[in-house]
Formats: sequence, C-alpha cells, structure tokens
Amino acid sequence: MKPDYTLYLVTDRRMLRGIGIEEAVEQAILGGATIVQLREKDVSSREFFNIAGSVKKITYKYGIPLIINDRLDIALAVDAAGLHVGQDDMPARVARRLLGQGKILGVSAGTVEEALQAEEDGADYIGVGTIFPTGTKKDTAQVGIRELRAITGAVKIPVVAIGGIKEENVEMLEGTGIKGVAVVSAIMAREDIRKATVALKEKLGFI
Amino acid sequence: MKPDYTLYLVTDRRMLRGIGIEEAVEQAILGGATIVQLREKDVSSREFFNIAGSVKKITYKYGIPLIINDRLDIALAVDAAGLHVGQDDMPARVARRLLGQGKILGVSAGTVEEALQAEEDGADYIGVGTIFPTGTKKDTAQVGIRELRAITGAVKIPVVAIGGIKEENVEMLEGTGIKGVAVVSAIMAREDIRKATVALKEKLGFI
Repeated sequence: MKPDYTLYLVTDRRMLRGIGIEEAVEQAILGGATIVQLREKDVSSREFFNIAGSVKKITYKYGIPLIINDRLDIALAVDAAGLHVGQDDMPARVARRLLGQGKILGVSAGTVEEALQAEEDGADYIGVGTIFPTGTKKDTAQVGIRELRAITGAVKIPVVAIGGIKEENVEMLEGTGIKGVAVVSAIMAREDIRKATVALKEKLGFI
Repeated sequence: MKPDYTLYLVTDRRMLRGIGIEEAVEQAILGGATIVQLREKDVSSREFFNIAGSVKKITYKYGIPLIINDRLDIALAVDAAGLHVGQDDMPARVARRLLGQGKILGVSAGTVEEALQAEEDGADYIGVGTIFPTGTKKDTAQVGIRELRAITGAVKIPVVAIGGIKEENVEMLEGTGIKGVAVVSAIMAREDIRKATVALKEKLGFI
C-alpha cells in the first residue's frame, strides 16, 4: 500500500508544551496526520531506540507509517515503516541497500539535481525545503515555489514540501504538484495539537 | 577465525597531533595493534560513514578487524567486522539480531551482572572499564582490579580491559584473566604512534 503523504508530521520534542511525545503524536494522528517522522537529535542511541519503540506503539495502533529520521539502525531496530535521510546523513543508495525494498525511503533535496539523484538512488519520496523561513532548521537553504514546481515536474516519485508551512501559508502551495506537506512547529508547538492538525488538514483539499 | 584482542586500539581523532585518522590507524597497526575500534562523536552520519569507509581500507589492507562504536548503521554500511555497544547504546540483544552471527559484537560492562547479561545477549567479548583514572571518558565509573578479576571469572567470553591503561601501568593487569587491553590516548595522543604501540605491545607478554 502506498503511504498517504498529505499531512506529514515531523516531531520535535523540544517544542512540546508539557506533554509527552507519544501523546503529541496521538493527538496529531487523531487530528488527521497521515504519516509521522520521528526526528531526535542529541540523544543517546539507547534513548532514541526507547522513544522510537514507544512512538511506534501509537502509530501502529492507528495504522500510520512511522519514519525514522537519519538513523537506519533505529529504523531497523524498531521495525519502523521507513527511514528519512538528508544530504548529511547516510547516502540514499546505501540506505536503500540496507533497508531492503519493503521499507519506505525518503530523501531531502533542495534542487532538481539532488531530487533526480535521490530518485535514482532508490527514494520512495522526496522532501523539499525549506519552503518558507523557519526557526526549526537554520542550516538549510530556502527553496522557492518555482524550484519546488521544477522538482515535482522532474521526478516521478511523490514530493513533500517542508519548512515554515502553516495554516496561513499552505494554500500558496496549490498547483505545485506536491503530494503532501510536512510540518514541525505548526503542529508540535501548538497548545492544542489535535485542533491545529484539523485546521491545517482542512486547507489541504488541493492535494 | 577468532579475533586477537591483545592490543585493542580505540580511536579519538581529537587527540591526533597533525596527522589524519587513516595514518594514525596504520601506524598503530604497524606497531602491533591487533584490532581497531572507530569511535566518532558529534559528527554527521555522512561524515561517520565516510571516515569509516576510509579507515576500513587501512584495516582491510592489514587484515585487522574494524569495529564500529555505537552505530550499527555505520557498521552495516561499510561492512565492518563488528560493532561495540555501551550501556547507553542500542541494547546488545537487538544489535546481535540485526548484525547476524557473522559479525563481532562487543559490549561494555562495569559489573559482573552487566557482563553476564552481555554474554547472554550475544556479546562476543566484553569491554570492562574504566580501570585507571582517565581524561577520555568521564561518564564511566571506575572498575577496580578485583571487580575485573570477578568479571573474567564469571564469563566465558574474552574480556578486554579499558580506561587509563598505558605502558607504565599495564603490567598491573597481569593475572586478571583478560584477553586484551584497549587504549585510546596511550596510542592516539602520542607523537610517534608506531613507537608507542610497539612499547605497549612489549609489555603484553602476559596475555
């Protein structure tokens, strides 16, 4: 079954307002998130493994794919649905070889060239960003709407837009050919995660 | 073939005096190191992967096993000889399942209980330390000679002592039943790595 990328939640525990990651993920799923990527930085491998196992119980309960950011070992260890790698992570072709064909492989790309390379290396989908200015990732160059459209036009696999996307600007992505939007703070940083997810999802009729 | 743990080099690039990690590893092997563990902290997965691939060319040339610290994904990606996990890393039983039986799995232990658990979980060898005070790892409790002897007496698999071991104190480990000594700074921080390794190796006749 092909994953539904429409509303792609990327986690960031540091943004949560007094609730645990499991509850945040559950509220987002109840609000309409269709896929979840667990992103953890500056934690030990043991801690990442424990959090991933714990979050997987939630995603599994709702039949939502869990994607692990960067760490193939954690993805394999918890039997996640897939792995997402950036340009600073393990090369996509190596990740694909080790993951096998049964798992979802996502690759970040900022240009048509990177997107075509990712597709050739075995990516199932491409994450393109940063689309709008954001405080979450400061090390990523901005990708304009024109470049985004060029990428969706160049590759056959689904493209998910990421970076600074929120309820107020998401409709600017209509007509770009994307198959989903990925958000971090637009969901994770909100007081009422479920409500924020519902509001965002209602704007995604164009996907 | 069973690995020779006699002189087990654990890398730390930050200690090197103006040479690359590949040259340092090669000099240590020429001086008598019998096994090499690549330990990298605070680098991206891509960088770890690149360094591991580069160091593996050296270890492969000399027929020396390359063990990767912590990161099972990197170990699999470069087809290293094995993986070493600490108590903050992926659980040993999970690592063994994902590594398969053909790879070496090392586990850090500081007590008889941890050592027996590691053996049960599928470890091929146990790293026990910190034996002597050291500046390399400040988060590890010290393990006395008596505890070290209790561990070698309790497990059937080889035990490697680690932590603050150097030419001047290594002979204190005679009679403890260890199958090797692991060192970081006693080799990596030295001006002449090959010479330092030779000097240390000469003291290891008791193993």
